[in-house]
Amino acid sequence: MAQQERAIETRAAIIRGAAAAFQERGYGSTSLSQVSAAAGVTKGALYFHFDSKEALAVAIIEAQHEASAAIGRTMLEQNVPGLRAILIMSLELARQLHDDPIVSAGVRLTIEAANFETPVGGPYLDWMAACEEYLRRGIAEGDISPAIDISAMGHFIISAFTGVQVVSDVLTGRDDIEDRLVEMWAVIMPALVPADRWEELKDLPERIRRERVAE
Amino acid sequence: MAQQERAIETRAAIIRGAAAAFQERGYGSTSLSQVSAAAGVTKGALYFHFDSKEALAVAIIEAQHEASAAIGRTMLEQNVPGLRAILIMSLELARQLHDDPIVSAGVRLTIEAANFETPVGGPYLDWMAACEEYLRRGIAEGDISPAIDISAMGHFIISAFTGVQVVSDVLTGRDDIEDRLVEMWAVIMPALVPADRWEELKDLPERIRRERVAE
Repeated sequence: MAQQERAIETRAAIIRGAAAAFQERGYGSTSLSQVSAAAGVTKGALYFHFDSKEALAVAIIEAQHEASAAIGRTMLEQNVPGLRAILIMSLELARQLHDDPIVSAGVRLTIEAANFETPVGGPYLDWMAACEEYLRRGIAEGDISPAIDISAMGHFIISAFTGVQVVSDVLTGRDDIEDRLVEMWAVIMPALVPADRWEELKDLPERIRRERVAE
Repeated sequence: MAQQERAIETRAAIIRGAAAAFQERGYGSTSLSQVSAAAGVTKGALYFHFDSKEALAVAIIEAQHEASAAIGRTMLEQNVPGLRAILIMSLELARQLHDDPIVSAGVRLTIEAANFETPVGGPYLDWMAACEEYLRRGIAEGDISPAIDISAMGHFIISAFTGVQVVSDVLTGRDDIEDRLVEMWAVIMPALVPADRWEELKDLPERIRRERVAE
């Protein structure tokens, strides 16, 4: 049992070390020796857990996806209204991208990994499905216009979020990501919210952002 | 003179070869030997033109930026109306991303290069400035609402475009990029166009797309 716990801990340490090493030097430029040094484990231990650098990258993408999918699950369980859930999801993922090295490395790997053997589109598709689910709730709750194309809107919201975080990463190391997200929602909200809820909801992105700072 | 022409040709061949090699294997995983093989030049010729792999990547980003900036210049010279110019720019850049290996490699490198010594945010900032210029024209022409925040909107349009092309790259190798762009414009247009021009302009993205196919 103690041995199994140690193995789990070693695996987690390798993932943390690899995330830090990939983030610093980029995936392709990082050697497995640099990963084992960053993780503080022997190369033997590294190969025991991961048989290639790609397997390691895929494990980071999965760990990142697990961390961010937990946000979505929590809100489903707490029955957060659809529109509010989408807004919170975007701000919470932005916070993880800024603060959590595994999430940050995982998202960048998803983009760099367009030429991996293993397909890495899963997280995008899962996020789109979650977004569609919340859009449907929002329509049922009257906060979102029933005239929207749910599939196209879910696809676009996830794509726009991706672009906002990529450009924020390139230009400011993601320091301006929250400001840019609130600006993104200022553009998207008019396409989502029906006229009769507009006055009540137009400031919701900014209100949620302030609530979160106060938390 | 003939010698100088040969040097220019060799440099262009190296950039094409490097773009293809980076696109296939990713930047970090590509060696300079693989670049010289892909370009059909000796390693000596390669080092004569570029003193590091990063210098080569920066040259590809610059060549990509040159190719795409030419679209913007043409429309400025032809006095294309602002809103139409933004829409054409996005569809033309999407076509380049799908068809031109240097543009495709350059844009991916901009993202992978977040940890280069050389700052690579220039193309994003230039695109934002071009977009702001067209937004200002569109306001003067009455096609764009004067109530928009020009700077925030320019920043968001470039970010959203970036996300659409990244997600399209990961999920479909950019095969669906035009459909996704038209969906993007369906969301952004209501935030741009004033009520009195809406009926006339709401189909403009789809109309421009069809014009381009007919060309």
